[in-house]
Amino acid sequence: MRNIHPLSSLKIRALIRKGKWDKPTAGLAMGYAQANLVILPQIYAFDFLLFCQRNPKPCPLLEVLEPGRFQTEFLSSEADIRTDIPRYNIYRKGKLEATVKEIRGFWKRDFVTFLLGCSFSFEEALVRSKIPIRHIEENRNVPMFITNIPCKPAGVFQGPMVVTMRPVHSDKVIRAVQITARYASVHGAPIHIGDPSKIGIKNMSKPDFGDAVTIKKGEIPVFWACGVTPQAVVMKAKPDLCITHTPGHMFISDLLNEELAAF
Amino acid sequence: MRNIHPLSSLKIRALIRKGKWDKPTAGLAMGYAQANLVILPQIYAFDFLLFCQRNPKPCPLLEVLEPGRFQTEFLSSEADIRTDIPRYNIYRKGKLEATVKEIRGFWKRDFVTFLLGCSFSFEEALVRSKIPIRHIEENRNVPMFITNIPCKPAGVFQGPMVVTMRPVHSDKVIRAVQITARYASVHGAPIHIGDPSKIGIKNMSKPDFGDAVTIKKGEIPVFWACGVTPQAVVMKAKPDLCITHTPGHMFISDLLNEELAAF
Repeated sequence: MRNIHPLSSLKIRALIRKGKWDKPTAGLAMGYAQANLVILPQIYAFDFLLFCQRNPKPCPLLEVLEPGRFQTEFLSSEADIRTDIPRYNIYRKGKLEATVKEIRGFWKRDFVTFLLGCSFSFEEALVRSKIPIRHIEENRNVPMFITNIPCKPAGVFQGPMVVTMRPVHSDKVIRAVQITARYASVHGAPIHIGDPSKIGIKNMSKPDFGDAVTIKKGEIPVFWACGVTPQAVVMKAKPDLCITHTPGHMFISDLLNEELAAF
Repeated sequence: MRNIHPLSSLKIRALIRKGKWDKPTAGLAMGYAQANLVILPQIYAFDFLLFCQRNPKPCPLLEVLEPGRFQTEFLSSEADIRTDIPRYNIYRKGKLEATVKEIRGFWKRDFVTFLLGCSFSFEEALVRSKIPIRHIEENRNVPMFITNIPCKPAGVFQGPMVVTMRPVHSDKVIRAVQITARYASVHGAPIHIGDPSKIGIKNMSKPDFGDAVTIKKGEIPVFWACGVTPQAVVMKAKPDLCITHTPGHMFISDLLNEELAAF
């Protein structure tokens, strides 16, 4: 399956649906938006929707399906959320129970599906503007940190904001803000520039998730809200059941990143 | 009460709370965002929140309060939604039952309050940029039209988008788009420019709501999504109970319009 990279989002999803691709989706279907997945029983749905409404930077909603629905309308006209993601994590009471390749057998009529924007979209825009992404260059996972910035709570959901860090040369920081600000539905403008201690980060070489990356001379750490925030907040609330994508194994939509840009 | 205009949002809300101002709020607390109000029983709350998520241009959410809560947090740290709006409409099964000056006696523990952005915010920005607002000049209500553009339905809520029309000189149309695009949380960029028939409007001199205004030579009709959309959609769904502000009698927040601008 080495030749998956040049395929369209439609063809890649068809392969995933048949169980022929269960690896990460980074670099696939370039130009197309990928999305984080959170599925919750209906009893939690209002609280979680409200949490996303109140915290749009870490939780940018791209599409929410009505209870029981497993077919997207906005992100694709033909996708089935139960089969079209390479790997799913099943959590019970906040604990990982299993990682599976499809969830038809788990599906219940009260499941509400949330699809959230992902930083892959704005990273592509940064690279196009000659702003390099260090963790891609170093072939690592993006460094993620738990901050001291509280999200606005909603019902049972609460917790601190998690951020990603990308080192940007001081000459290009302003441009990086401008570029990512265009993509409000995929985390948008940064939430902090410069001093990690201001947002409660003590050790830049020890991220809470992902890998540390090199910060070169003349570069400034820039922090963006991260899609791990809603996942951490959901796990903390210990719902009876929650299904997410396995980190890195995203939903590939038929929507271009440029269609998500605000202007 | 002629001297209410120069007062702060805080002082105006205090007067409204005491029942000393029950007139429209246009022109009060200039610079501060005003909001539309929709209160629904909890049973309708997920569907309506989802409707707003799916239709952000006509339904730009500024704040949603959890079930039973009547104090805002984001729009003001001291407002009481039961008393701080000059006039309320009470609807049962989609029919207007009463117009009242406060709703403490109607309040129930399962009420969910939605506050939505209003075009007053972007009108102020247009005027500041020397783009005149005809209905203000002619001392009329903004003309509103029901379009043939369907909103994305959610649960029991569905219906066509309602738009406002402002004539803009052709030299200034692009600037008007740029300015209003900054205010995504108060309807944002226009939804149509130029040809009313393209969006199902047959007679520009007979708006469905509000008043007709003069369109001068060289001016082009520009259409923005309108906050009447969610009200019309809610009435059509005939909920057991719904409380809204009386048109024009808005909630005055402590948030500056500029704080709502995207960049």
